[in-house]
Amino acid sequence: MTSTPPSDRQKADGGEGLPLVGTPPQAAYGTEETEFFLPELPRPLPSAYHPNAVEIEVRSNAWVCRHLQSCFADEQALLFYLRQRAGLYGAAVSPLADERRAGDIADFYQYVTVMDDAVAGSTTSEVQARAALTRITDGFGVDSDDASPLVRAGADLWRRITPGLSPAQVRRFKESLASSLGGYADEVPHRHAGRVLDLDSYLALRVFSFGWPFVALMTEYGADVDMSDLHPTPGFERANGHAVRQMILVNDLLSWRKEHARADTMNAVAVLRHTDSLTLQDAVDTLCRLIEDEGRAYLAARDRILHGPLGTRPDVVAYFGAVDHLIGGTQAYHYLTPRYFGDGYAPDGSTSGWLSLTEPLARLRPHPATHPVDAGRRLPASR
Amino acid sequence: MTSTPPSDRQKADGGEGLPLVGTPPQAAYGTEETEFFLPELPRPLPSAYHPNAVEIEVRSNAWVCRHLQSCFADEQALLFYLRQRAGLYGAAVSPLADERRAGDIADFYQYVTVMDDAVAGSTTSEVQARAALTRITDGFGVDSDDASPLVRAGADLWRRITPGLSPAQVRRFKESLASSLGGYADEVPHRHAGRVLDLDSYLALRVFSFGWPFVALMTEYGADVDMSDLHPTPGFERANGHAVRQMILVNDLLSWRKEHARADTMNAVAVLRHTDSLTLQDAVDTLCRLIEDEGRAYLAARDRILHGPLGTRPDVVAYFGAVDHLIGGTQAYHYLTPRYFGDGYAPDGSTSGWLSLTEPLARLRPHPATHPVDAGRRLPASR
Repeated sequence: MTSTPPSDRQKADGGEGLPLVGTPPQAAYGTEETEFFLPELPRPLPSAYHPNAVEIEVRSNAWVCRHLQSCFADEQALLFYLRQRAGLYGAAVSPLADERRAGDIADFYQYVTVMDDAVAGSTTSEVQARAALTRITDGFGVDSDDASPLVRAGADLWRRITPGLSPAQVRRFKESLASSLGGYADEVPHRHAGRVLDLDSYLALRVFSFGWPFVALMTEYGADVDMSDLHPTPGFERANGHAVRQMILVNDLLSWRKEHARADTMNAVAVLRHTDSLTLQDAVDTLCRLIEDEGRAYLAARDRILHGPLGTRPDVVAYFGAVDHLIGGTQAYHYLTPRYFGDGYAPDGSTSGWLSLTEPLARLRPHPATHPVDAGRRLPASR
Repeated sequence: MTSTPPSDRQKADGGEGLPLVGTPPQAAYGTEETEFFLPELPRPLPSAYHPNAVEIEVRSNAWVCRHLQSCFADEQALLFYLRQRAGLYGAAVSPLADERRAGDIADFYQYVTVMDDAVAGSTTSEVQARAALTRITDGFGVDSDDASPLVRAGADLWRRITPGLSPAQVRRFKESLASSLGGYADEVPHRHAGRVLDLDSYLALRVFSFGWPFVALMTEYGADVDMSDLHPTPGFERANGHAVRQMILVNDLLSWRKEHARADTMNAVAVLRHTDSLTLQDAVDTLCRLIEDEGRAYLAARDRILHGPLGTRPDVVAYFGAVDHLIGGTQAYHYLTPRYFGDGYAPDGSTSGWLSLTEPLARLRPHPATHPVDAGRRLPASR
């Protein structure tokens, strides 16, 4: 499963049966380097926030305070969370949705993010995690008033969202959360192993860990369409696959500062550094090319569908319009949230620059901190 | 003059000729009380953010970084400023404007806020203030590349905004800034006198200090109308007067936490406490009634115009539609900005509750801190 705004916490190492590359010392994939240059990423897709984004974020924050306050250790922890502006993510990925649905989507993404933060504490045992997650999953479909806050909040979302879903989507909704949560529980015993997968294995796993099943469902919910019968078709699988990989890679790149700080191996930067023995800057540059490739491949796969017989169906057109905004909005949101730049960050419009891995509060700066004389030149600090 | 988002800094005591009530010891108007209950304020007017509010704020922050970065002592000071989200105020008060104009308005309000913060340092002498303000005023209309950042930024705004104004509005634009800035400079020698005016004198002065001339002009700019010939008419004077007093009183109430911290006497809470010997809570309650009265009086004055011969003019209708949103948006914005609640605040949707005057980071809470056993009851802590 994932926290979405796209997952940045420890992810599954997949357990048995996966082609693990090895268990390198942590220093081998980046702890010795302190900054990198983030190039301007291509933006092949539109990004926009919902016209009521400000109100949606505030109302969603109020929903968190009402339903999930007790998930936080204290008021300071709650405010720290709210300052990350996870409540804005729903508005970033559903700009065309009806305002009520956009609000439901915002609350849902806050829910999985809070749940993620609450359960993902590094001291959580597998047993504790499974017990908590089972109760959370039970919350979907249960109308309980005496259960835990996460169960009650899940039931609230279920009550609000399922009337807008088809029976097939209702089944997918429950399964998506259960399978994502189950996948997360499977991760727990492997979390701290620090193994690095090869890129294909990593991405295959991460699509699951990213929570794509519920991301797709929320995208359909925002567009008021049902793609249940089309998702298994090869064309949709291809387009969806490129879409989710583009988002995973963008998230891995922008969240590397945070994930590096806890030596997370489940990130494409770590994967590329280790498997290809790249410097940090070379891994970043390679990742940027992969992001561009996935974006272009998504567009091609999408256009193949839209130029074929399905292209006359308004629901299919609406779905891909929503996926376009999902991809574009996810990318735009990453430059805005303090989640990755550090508490106290404020968006300054920058989308490229030098990013420190060590400062508590980072910004994208025009000059490297370690070679300030190279002002304005793009010169990886590690060279 | 003012910082707008509505001014919360030291305001003029008016100098000579004003009926000063006296110079009470600071403790007499509130330093002994530590919290008050903020009732739900009436909201007779619509509030909405511009549909592109998120993008406008980010772009406006980028404009501040580009033009005004050197006005801040260091990067921490810049980020502290950006976290107050002054860049969102323009989108709060011009929801119906063309996106480009809404962006211009956002930048203008950031400009006066930064200028205010930059010049309003308590160590600024009158001479320094006048010198700085003269240069800033010169920036309006001057196309200079070698002047100070504030002058250059002012020239940038002038270049962008004046093509959308009539000749009469261009004159008002320059005069509004010059007179507001001049009024501010006049304040400097009186700032720390700590005198308290009576309410009528205070409000008469504060309308000027609030920057109404440029607020009105920006409102017209957002609506693409020119009310220059109508502002001096009795009907407009009445409607505008109630509008600005409503906004001043809302600002005084919501900013009292911040102004109290520096024993500012130029605030309606201080005025009411001192002139009527009210407790803090009674002053707050009285202020809430005044806010309601001014809002109602604005509506009546506006309707008198709209139901008369001017009511058939689309520009007049558009102007009052924009003033409606100015009032409603200003009020909504006050619950959202960390400027008044403290750095680290995040909007949680609350618009009523107990507000601490002493905590570094306050929220509107359902219970008083000093009498937590009275949970949920509205019981002023000072009784």
